[in-house]
Amino acid sequence: MNEKHIPTRLSLSEDETPKFWYNVRADMKAQHEPFLHPGTLKPCTPADLEPVFCKELVKQELDFSTRLIKIPDGLLDFYRATRPSPLIRARFLEKALNTPAEIYYKHEGNNTSGSHKLNSAAAQAYYAKAEGLTSLTTETGAGQWGTALSMACAFFGLDLTVYMVKVSSIQKPYRKAVIETFGAKLVPSPSDTTDVGRSILKNDPDTGGSLGCAISEAIETSVKTDKCRYVLGSVLDHVLLHQSLIGQECKAAFEKYGIKPDIIIGCAGGGSNLGGLISPFIGDKINGKSNTRFIAVEPASCPSLTRGRFAYDFGDTGKTTPLLKMYTLGNGFIPSANHAGGLRYHGMSPIISKLYDDGYIEARAEIQTEVFKAATAFAKVEGILPAPESSHAIKAAIDEAVKCRETGEKKTILFGLTGTGYFDMSAYMSYNDGTMSDKIPTDEDLERGFASLPKIG
Amino acid sequence: MNEKHIPTRLSLSEDETPKFWYNVRADMKAQHEPFLHPGTLKPCTPADLEPVFCKELVKQELDFSTRLIKIPDGLLDFYRATRPSPLIRARFLEKALNTPAEIYYKHEGNNTSGSHKLNSAAAQAYYAKAEGLTSLTTETGAGQWGTALSMACAFFGLDLTVYMVKVSSIQKPYRKAVIETFGAKLVPSPSDTTDVGRSILKNDPDTGGSLGCAISEAIETSVKTDKCRYVLGSVLDHVLLHQSLIGQECKAAFEKYGIKPDIIIGCAGGGSNLGGLISPFIGDKINGKSNTRFIAVEPASCPSLTRGRFAYDFGDTGKTTPLLKMYTLGNGFIPSANHAGGLRYHGMSPIISKLYDDGYIEARAEIQTEVFKAATAFAKVEGILPAPESSHAIKAAIDEAVKCRETGEKKTILFGLTGTGYFDMSAYMSYNDGTMSDKIPTDEDLERGFASLPKIG
Repeated sequence: MNEKHIPTRLSLSEDETPKFWYNVRADMKAQHEPFLHPGTLKPCTPADLEPVFCKELVKQELDFSTRLIKIPDGLLDFYRATRPSPLIRARFLEKALNTPAEIYYKHEGNNTSGSHKLNSAAAQAYYAKAEGLTSLTTETGAGQWGTALSMACAFFGLDLTVYMVKVSSIQKPYRKAVIETFGAKLVPSPSDTTDVGRSILKNDPDTGGSLGCAISEAIETSVKTDKCRYVLGSVLDHVLLHQSLIGQECKAAFEKYGIKPDIIIGCAGGGSNLGGLISPFIGDKINGKSNTRFIAVEPASCPSLTRGRFAYDFGDTGKTTPLLKMYTLGNGFIPSANHAGGLRYHGMSPIISKLYDDGYIEARAEIQTEVFKAATAFAKVEGILPAPESSHAIKAAIDEAVKCRETGEKKTILFGLTGTGYFDMSAYMSYNDGTMSDKIPTDEDLERGFASLPKIG
Repeated sequence: MNEKHIPTRLSLSEDETPKFWYNVRADMKAQHEPFLHPGTLKPCTPADLEPVFCKELVKQELDFSTRLIKIPDGLLDFYRATRPSPLIRARFLEKALNTPAEIYYKHEGNNTSGSHKLNSAAAQAYYAKAEGLTSLTTETGAGQWGTALSMACAFFGLDLTVYMVKVSSIQKPYRKAVIETFGAKLVPSPSDTTDVGRSILKNDPDTGGSLGCAISEAIETSVKTDKCRYVLGSVLDHVLLHQSLIGQECKAAFEKYGIKPDIIIGCAGGGSNLGGLISPFIGDKINGKSNTRFIAVEPASCPSLTRGRFAYDFGDTGKTTPLLKMYTLGNGFIPSANHAGGLRYHGMSPIISKLYDDGYIEARAEIQTEVFKAATAFAKVEGILPAPESSHAIKAAIDEAVKCRETGEKKTILFGLTGTGYFDMSAYMSYNDGTMSDKIPTDEDLERGFASLPKIG
């Protein structure tokens, strides 16, 4: 099988694409701790979650055992227009690195939202529509998630209000314009449309806003609006489930061409991309049937896996969500202002956290100038301008390929290219002109973050 | 064959993709008039053209008879990483229009340059490298061509200087940043790096520049630089030849699934995309074997086919190029300042002009608010944010599909989606907020343009 000619783009026909999501929890010997209700500190029940999320999503969130979950036909139709995403053999990168390694990347940026976020946005909008809701609210920082959800809501016919961190909406007017083109209402946050927004503005009229504040405004609006829910683009188990499309397509193509990956690499912020990429692969590792290595790459400026604590924490800085057991820097942690791009969440998906704690996943942190160096090198030979987030995975893939050059090993490396960098050019400009800097949190910075962790038990 | 299930994305495997370009001139019963040397008014010889273009490109430019021209292996490797581009059945647009028509679009925007321009940029850079050149120069207005060429030069290892219209480099700093990320030198034009630039600046220090001026600076620099050539991204026959990849892939996929197009639609500025799209299809029309309709869609603000003259004209406003027999508004014509997006060239590819004059191609002109209306409707259902240029083709495709709804005819429509609109959001913003306006040149405006036509014979 390994002698088969491997094309540069590993195509899948429509009947070879996945019709099911892959629920990695069915392959895990030990599960992550349950979410706790922040008032009672008891495990959350469906009844606790259903006022916040669609019923079907709650069901998915709490389903630890069904390995394959059917993608509804109406959603599959949508996926068929945008997927499979390209799986590309990085022949030119291999050549540039003079490495015996084989490098593949799964390119999730080839849709207008520019990232993998659309996979879960479409699923969440689909279920909202199917359950009779008429609108959704969400928050967005850099804008990838807001864009993806605006596309999904336009497609499924739902109204959407996006609370966008005010400073980001000013810095990225084109992100705002894309979201509005898809018909969503964009509100720079904090705003005077909510109690929490008005209260914040009263105290600090000139604030540029924060993700925590935008989340609070989006939740308040959803609770006050009939047939409306608040939706989230990462961290949660059902989001990882939807993102398993990424890994499923890789697995189908690899099996078609007789390829076995030795190393699978993903960038990690909230963990949705990494979780989706590794979901159908890591079961064999857990069961001792493969030695594949799984590597999470996070920014050195927001190092939840490599320097965080494995503890119960709130999902938001406003301390309103259920408590999640995860690797976290504390909900009060804020990355240094010089940090470009996403991957700035204080915590990490409970699934990824558990797999990491149990030793199935490795983690490493990279500084951003090295990440942009890798991004630029990749762009020049592979012709794709990567998002800063994705470039963390590129950096690790290059490092592993260089090790292969040194040892002579012909390893097969797969990494997730989560998105494109068209809306991140200001960061590229600062890298190009040499003004980009690195700043790693001191131990004192981390202690301040940990101080925000809830005291439990 | 027609009963075969047609997937939403019509995939091609690597061995089904074209290995040859399709030279449409081999199918034409009558050829366009030869280029004339501007000094002697005699047909240009290879010796006239070789100081300006690579030898192989000159050979392609003057080859009217070889139907299939082999794509060199080194270039095919590059194409394999970025192509085939998606060919998508617009099921959601069909549904939204409630039309019996089948609509397909060829999506050329799924690469970092964001458009089909990369197809010819890669070819031109490949030959430059193969012939021992070390650098290229070009001009760019909106930036698509400059981006594509910067990617191609990074890949093939050539230095590149891009003269970008100064006002555009200021309005689109992110385009500039992308071009620089790929290692090209970007010079806002007019500049003090050339005689012509210094002369223009002396007369008008505050000028925002023009495409004509940027072309002149790029040509001057290339002539003065050792092992350097100037390259062009549209209009010329060899550019259309490279773009025939677009049509070849459509034809291969259509034959695979037993689809016969009734109408093929492309936007038309210089004509490279339209020419590439129709190249392998129009021969059957010329030979009476098919009734397929071919429709060129141009902006009403720059209507070279629908309101221009079929005459010899210069390719540039500086009147330095050979004379081309084409539909033209006159090299002195400048579209109204409120015109957004590309498709602002005064002339039209000689091949397209000839096919149009001989009655094989129809043409229509559209106003930009209607074009953006079509773009927005398309984006909402198909999930792709189109470039303003491409949206001219969308507008015509929608109109044709609506006609089918009225007549009940089940026609098969193919249109070229040349690119994405990520760098055109300011135009979308003006459409979204209702400030976008339409302005069609008056007969007097056109007469002023025609006055710039050279007096010949």
